[in-house]
This record gives sequence, C-alpha cells and structure tokens, in this order.
Amino acid sequence: MDNDIFKVDFKVRDYECDIQGIVNNSVYQNYLEHTRHEYLHHLGIDFAKYALEGINLIVIRAELDYKYPLRAGDEFYVDVKMERVSPIRFAFIQNIYRKSDDKLCVMGRIIGTALNANGRPKLPEEIEKIFDEAVK
Amino acid sequence: MDNDIFKVDFKVRDYECDIQGIVNNSVYQNYLEHTRHEYLHHLGIDFAKYALEGINLIVIRAELDYKYPLRAGDEFYVDVKMERVSPIRFAFIQNIYRKSDDKLCVMGRIIGTALNANGRPKLPEEIEKIFDEAVK
Amino acid sequence: MDNDIFKVDFKVRDYECDIQGIVNNSVYQNYLEHTRHEYLHHLGIDFAKYALEGINLIVIRAELDYKYPLRAGDEFYVDVKMERVSPIRFAFIQNIYRKSDDKLCVMGRIIGTALNANGRPKLPEEIEKIFDEAVK
Amino acid sequence: MDNDIFKVDFKVRDYECDIQGIVNNSVYQNYLEHTRHEYLHHLGIDFAKYALEGINLIVIRAELDYKYPLRAGDEFYVDVKMERVSPIRFAFIQNIYRKSDDKLCVMGRIIGTALNANGRPKLPEEIEKIFDEAVK
Repeated sequence: MDNDIFKVDFKVRDYECDIQGIVNNSVYQNYLEHTRHEYLHHLGIDFAKYALEGINLIVIRAELDYKYPLRAGDEFYVDVKMERVSPIRFAFIQNIYRKSDDKLCVMGRIIGTALNANGRPKLPEEIEKIFDEAVK
Repeated sequence: MDNDIFKVDFKVRDYECDIQGIVNNSVYQNYLEHTRHEYLHHLGIDFAKYALEGINLIVIRAELDYKYPLRAGDEFYVDVKMERVSPIRFAFIQNIYRKSDDKLCVMGRIIGTALNANGRPKLPEEIEKIFDEAVK
Repeated sequence: MDNDIFKVDFKVRDYECDIQGIVNNSVYQNYLEHTRHEYLHHLGIDFAKYALEGINLIVIRAELDYKYPLRAGDEFYVDVKMERVSPIRFAFIQNIYRKSDDKLCVMGRIIGTALNANGRPKLPEEIEKIFDEAVK
Repeated sequence: MDNDIFKVDFKVRDYECDIQGIVNNSVYQNYLEHTRHEYLHHLGIDFAKYALEGINLIVIRAELDYKYPLRAGDEFYVDVKMERVSPIRFAFIQNIYRKSDDKLCVMGRIIGTALNANGRPKLPEEIEKIFDEAVK
C-alpha cells in the first residue's frame, strides 16, 4: 500500500447548511474526520474498535483554511495524505474540492496522536507499522 | 464598551460526545461560534440579521489546539477577545475552560472577514466602527 | 414518473455515533430529511431554492420507530414513498434498512405541508401538480 | 421527589438553524434528549455511566408535533414528565416553549426502555425504583 492520495466522495446535505445558505464551518471538520477514518480503515485501522479498547486516536491540532463555501446539493470530494511529524505525531494533509470544477474549498492540516488507556501518548506498535508503511 | 474578556457558560450535552465518550472535535467549533455570535450580538452586531441582508460575516481560517477533552456533563466556559489583523480581517482569540478547575481544554484562533452581496471582502462601516471600538 | 420506492444509500460516519457506540436518535431524522430532499429534487422540487423564495416546505409531525440501531461503519439505505393525507398535507413513509442483511432499523412517518411567505399553509400549484403525479 | 414538571432553559444557537432560518427539525430531538438526560440525572440516573456499563437506556419510539418554529437567538425551555406505559416501558411527555411568550413550539412523546448487555429489554432494579418514585 503506498501513500497515493486517498479520496472520499460526498454530497452536501441540506441540514448541513446554515442561515447563510452555505455549509456551516464546523461541518467541514465532520467531512475531514470521516475521510480520515475511512482512510485509517483502508489502512487496516478501525477507529471505533480502538476507541472501545481504550486506545484513543486523537486530534491535537487542526488548521483549516476556508477558501470557498460549499452550498446545498454540491457534490465534492475530500482527500487525505499522511506525514510523520514526530515519533508520536502524524499530520493529515486534507483538501476539500467541489466536484463540478475541482475548485478548492477547504484546506486542512490535522495533527494527531494516540493515547493509551492511561491517557499517555503512545502509538500502538501495530498502528506504528501501518503508518510507517503509509508515509513511505 | 471595552475589550474585556467576554464569556459564555455551557454544559456538555450527551449527544455532543462520540464513541470515545468525549466531545467530538467538530463540536468545539460550534461552542466557539456560538460564543463569537453572542459576543457580536453583545457588541450590537446581529449575525443572522446580516446574513438575511446578504452581508456575510465569514471565517477564513481556524486554528484549534485540543489540550484536554470535555466529557458528558462537564460544565465549561468559552471566552473571546478580538484583534485587528488587517484592514478587513479580525482575529478572535478564544479559549475553552472546564469550569470545575479552570483547566484549559481548547485554544482557538479564528480569522474572520465580511463579504458583501457580490462576495467581495468589505466590512460595512457600521461594523467597522463597532469593531474599532471593541479592540481599543 | 411513478411512485416506485425511491432510495438513497448511506454509510454511518463515526461522528454520528454517541457514547453508546450507536447512531444518535436525532441523526436518523437527518438521514430521513436528506432522503426526502433528494426525492423532492428527483421530482423537480428544490427545497433550498423554495426556502430562498420564502416558500417553506415544513414538517408538522414526525413518528419514528427505532427497531434496531445502526453502528459505526454500517452501510444502509433509506427509502421514501409519498401519500396524500389532506388537500394541503402529505405523508412521507420512510424506512431505514441495514444494507448487509436488509434489517429494518427505523420506520418513519413524516407529515409535511407548505407555508407561503405569510406563514399560511399553501401548496404552490407547481408543487401540487408534481405531488399529484407522484402519488398516482 | 415528586413528578412536578422538570424544566431546562436553552437558547437557540445560530448553527442549529438551517437555510430556512429556523431550527432544523432534528435539532429539537437534541433539545428533548438533553432535557431527558438532565431529568434522569436529577433523579439519580447517569445516562453516560450506564452506557459505559453496557446498560443502554434507549428510545424505541418518538412522536413529535412541530407547532411553531424557533429562530436564531430565541430563548426557550423544555419540560419533561414521565408516565409508565408497560412493565418495561416509560413515556416521556415533553414540550418546548418559547420563553418570551410561552408559545408552544414542539410537543413530544418519547417512549423508552432499557436493554441489558445482551440486548434484552430489562429495567435495572435500581432504575425501576427511581422511576416508580418519579411517576407517583
């Protein structure tokens, strides 16, 4: 498995839009998260399963640049690429594009780590191996 | 009106928590937004009214540092302070603290501007005046 | 266009699940709404466009039977069938099924009407015609 | 402790409103749920704690009548009263009122039960005792 760009397709749902008729800012984080979790799942990492086992993959920082708003009914796709930032931190570089014209709508840089059951940062060996493979 | 720290009190609602038993990352942006809108309202700026008039106060960048998770039932407060970044841009410096021990949970820096009905960045004079007063 | 069952495919996103590890009750209404709006769009009715014109298609009653919970990662589909209840009211009969085994998860009966700009119930002729065609 | 009406105060947050400028239908279920959980907590039942122990208090049916929409900034309150429906089922009768004029906005009737770790309906004795006391 290489680090080719992983993509998920979406369509804006009306309830995700706010009074301004555009997708609410917080909802883009939902899109980014779903794409990351699908990506992790694709790599063999089940976010929900780990959560139930007390190993929490968590986000410690999010940077979001809102370039252009998505509107009701817009189709779009979100990609994700992983970079190692430190022994226990990974960055997910993610972009959201409108499908009709590939217009860049949101740029995200999400920094994550893993906490064990005691709340200490610790990347399970199994995950470490998969991540190392992914960022090659 | 001075730029004293403006605060809003909240309590975590169970539906805001995810499988990990903690508040989902995107929900903190809801808390920050509600606090900003309450602050703007306090300054005399009605976000929803402007939206209906075609003037959209928008966020162009968000930086969020997740320091410590909030859990079901936690009481917390969110503050907001405004700084002028450029002629048409303002930064909202916001922190989220757990109430029981004032533990810092999330630090946010949200950059905003205003778009007129044509989508051009333009701070209405009325808002400009209020903002100038607030950052004094 | 006949009244054949209209379906939309979905996949549970982790952020839609709550502390119990299952989709939160309110989220099913999001699924049902998105399916209704896709159905209306398929019939030639743009919910968002009408909203901007001051004609609001609104829900006046919702009945939801929760039979079996959806979990993180579950694929599912939602269907919708329309029935006329009165001159100005329509019922949307909707079911949510897990895809892997067609297990019925939620049954919904949603009653809707339309309000004009003055807040009076009034089905625009254009919509009326489309609805009449759909329930044939 | 008697069965006096239990109330929770809220204020509409802008992100809870949709393109129509009113609170989205699904969000009222969030309000009702938060009020129920606060009520249960008030009775000595911690929804989140039970969830972690594998005892799930679940909703099996929801009936919602939408009478009048809440808008951005509206203050409102939600009440809740419990009725026993069967040996293992309880109904929560809930209403949502706008604060400024006590206008009734939403009427809800939510039927719940409890599932044990094996997914069987079973009201823990401890909860049963509290509920019996509450509906007196």
